[in-house]
Amino acid sequence: MKKIVVLGSTGSIGRQTLDIVRAFPEEFDVVGLAAGNNRDTLLEQVKEFKPQYIYCTHRPAELPANVSFISMEEMVSLEEVDTVMVALMGSVGLVPTLKALRHGKLVALSNKEPIVMAGEMIKRFEAEYGGAVFPVDSEPSAIWQCMRGEDNTVRRLMITGSGGPFRNTPVTELTDVTPELALHHPTWTMGKKITIDSATMMNKAFEVIESHWLFNVPWDKIEVVIHPQSTIHSMVEFEDGSVKAQMGPPDMRLPIQYALFYPKRFFNDMIPKLDISISHSLTFQPMEPERYPCFSLAVSAGQRGGTYPTVLSAADEVAVGAFLDRKIGFTDIHRVVDQTLSDHQVMPGADVEEVLEANRWAAQRAGEIAGL
Amino acid sequence: MKKIVVLGSTGSIGRQTLDIVRAFPEEFDVVGLAAGNNRDTLLEQVKEFKPQYIYCTHRPAELPANVSFISMEEMVSLEEVDTVMVALMGSVGLVPTLKALRHGKLVALSNKEPIVMAGEMIKRFEAEYGGAVFPVDSEPSAIWQCMRGEDNTVRRLMITGSGGPFRNTPVTELTDVTPELALHHPTWTMGKKITIDSATMMNKAFEVIESHWLFNVPWDKIEVVIHPQSTIHSMVEFEDGSVKAQMGPPDMRLPIQYALFYPKRFFNDMIPKLDISISHSLTFQPMEPERYPCFSLAVSAGQRGGTYPTVLSAADEVAVGAFLDRKIGFTDIHRVVDQTLSDHQVMPGADVEEVLEANRWAAQRAGEIAGL
Repeated sequence: MKKIVVLGSTGSIGRQTLDIVRAFPEEFDVVGLAAGNNRDTLLEQVKEFKPQYIYCTHRPAELPANVSFISMEEMVSLEEVDTVMVALMGSVGLVPTLKALRHGKLVALSNKEPIVMAGEMIKRFEAEYGGAVFPVDSEPSAIWQCMRGEDNTVRRLMITGSGGPFRNTPVTELTDVTPELALHHPTWTMGKKITIDSATMMNKAFEVIESHWLFNVPWDKIEVVIHPQSTIHSMVEFEDGSVKAQMGPPDMRLPIQYALFYPKRFFNDMIPKLDISISHSLTFQPMEPERYPCFSLAVSAGQRGGTYPTVLSAADEVAVGAFLDRKIGFTDIHRVVDQTLSDHQVMPGADVEEVLEANRWAAQRAGEIAGL
Repeated sequence: MKKIVVLGSTGSIGRQTLDIVRAFPEEFDVVGLAAGNNRDTLLEQVKEFKPQYIYCTHRPAELPANVSFISMEEMVSLEEVDTVMVALMGSVGLVPTLKALRHGKLVALSNKEPIVMAGEMIKRFEAEYGGAVFPVDSEPSAIWQCMRGEDNTVRRLMITGSGGPFRNTPVTELTDVTPELALHHPTWTMGKKITIDSATMMNKAFEVIESHWLFNVPWDKIEVVIHPQSTIHSMVEFEDGSVKAQMGPPDMRLPIQYALFYPKRFFNDMIPKLDISISHSLTFQPMEPERYPCFSLAVSAGQRGGTYPTVLSAADEVAVGAFLDRKIGFTDIHRVVDQTLSDHQVMPGADVEEVLEANRWAAQRAGEIAGL
């Protein structure tokens, strides 16, 4: 039985994680649930899953019986916990992820910002404390599945991306894009931040950075290809030229379940079946760099390392928030992130304090640039 | 260093096998080469690869220095041999395959008729004598690669087929098809027998039978899907709904090399690279049973077992030969095989003699039906 903590239990991935728990009641003991502002949903989840510990941004005046209110950091450090699902949004996932790893936990990581901000540190903590990070994102999960059982003879990772809602929008019209249009993702239903990151392809760059760290693959061996149907979630080319692809309907419960049960695979009738002969046609095309300037900006920040990827992540979080609040335009997201990176005095970023300092600095600087 | 024997060294797969040997001279010692009628090519290969043993249908009057002429059965039984590539055509591969397995050799099997004719026996010999059969065919190789590192949680195999040259020909016009048209395969360049078997989809049924035995997957979990581009070589769906596909350009050297070096993968610049963003579009459609009546006839013979699959294979070999010799029409291939199967008194087919007897009987009966 897995003793699990779910951070971000009321969000999209958190709820789907609890779908998996519900489907396999014999396999899980939910020790803790943590949410943000959605206290009512959290309290409903408490009734169903009976955790001993909860956390949310505003502590309820009265706690359910036998439930203690503790911080996320305390929750992931509990002796009895073995698995932590980190399904938080943005930089808030960093500290709990690092804390869980310091306690040797298995971290199922859906929230990619922690590994973008502190990839080197996360891998170091895995090695030092005996824990592990398993990706929950569908693209890194696809790569992980394709590499399963293979010796490390990767020649190329090919991360697929749908191209987002503006794949065919004339580039000159992107300045006028509204949050409503940007939130309309062609294939996936996800949280707002990640949906906007998909429209700018910032999200795809985050996956490049994530894959670099998770699978120890050099930057020049990671490519991105546009695949509008999102049926092939990613591909790996091996030394001999053979390519493996992982496919499935766009449903996050598959990579969630894979990370939670790895290396086992279990039947779950909630997960829809791929009907390839109905899929008709899978198309691929190169990515247009001028349509997605955030992509190369972000990959380059990842490559430069130090505190740059932290600043990238923090600035993007602020810029996306400002765009959703109609404070800046769609193409300003790139401008804000670019300027914040330019203004940054890089630090090695080798310890948590430095990363958190860079995160704070970047959030403030990006806010100034965005005119917040 | 692998001590290898290549049976069928002058055919398409045999020559490509020697391409791999040539690319990795440190890895192979060619102990024996066997060919059919193409004696001149064999003697050229002898000069380059310096085997100690050769075989061909008509013994040369004078043998090259230090070369002995022995039968294929003797060759695969040699103590010093560890790997046998069986790249023969039709039923002639059966006896050497079984002999090699009886001597515990690793058999790279490109010639699928042996496993169609005697799948149960081949798996029994593997277990009894400690040898192994590795598929060289691109579809079974794809399945083998997709299953690598996975526990046995297969929900479905999806074998892809191009649909052959008559995928879009009106079914009523198939009676008038000539050997020239049938030999024009849309994606692969192969030997004549297998090219005709691809046009009738008999070849795809053989792959179903082969996969059933090689991967121990029940018949009802094996599907065929038409995929005209032949980029995805086959797919495996696992218990949790995740699908893995193996892809590559249509080049047989990849599955040959994979079988010879398994589990290792090596770079080989002869093998072309898949450029997915140039592939534009991968399409899939269901197979039309009325277009390919040989397919269900053959799968059903495989399922019925006993000597039926042997009779299937033998009758098809005769019928395809008769079609290539313009003795019968294209749609008569089905008629001849169907009638031969109907006339057959099934035997268990559990030993070599019975299988060979059924093979002889079926070849004769099919010849009579074809009016040869």
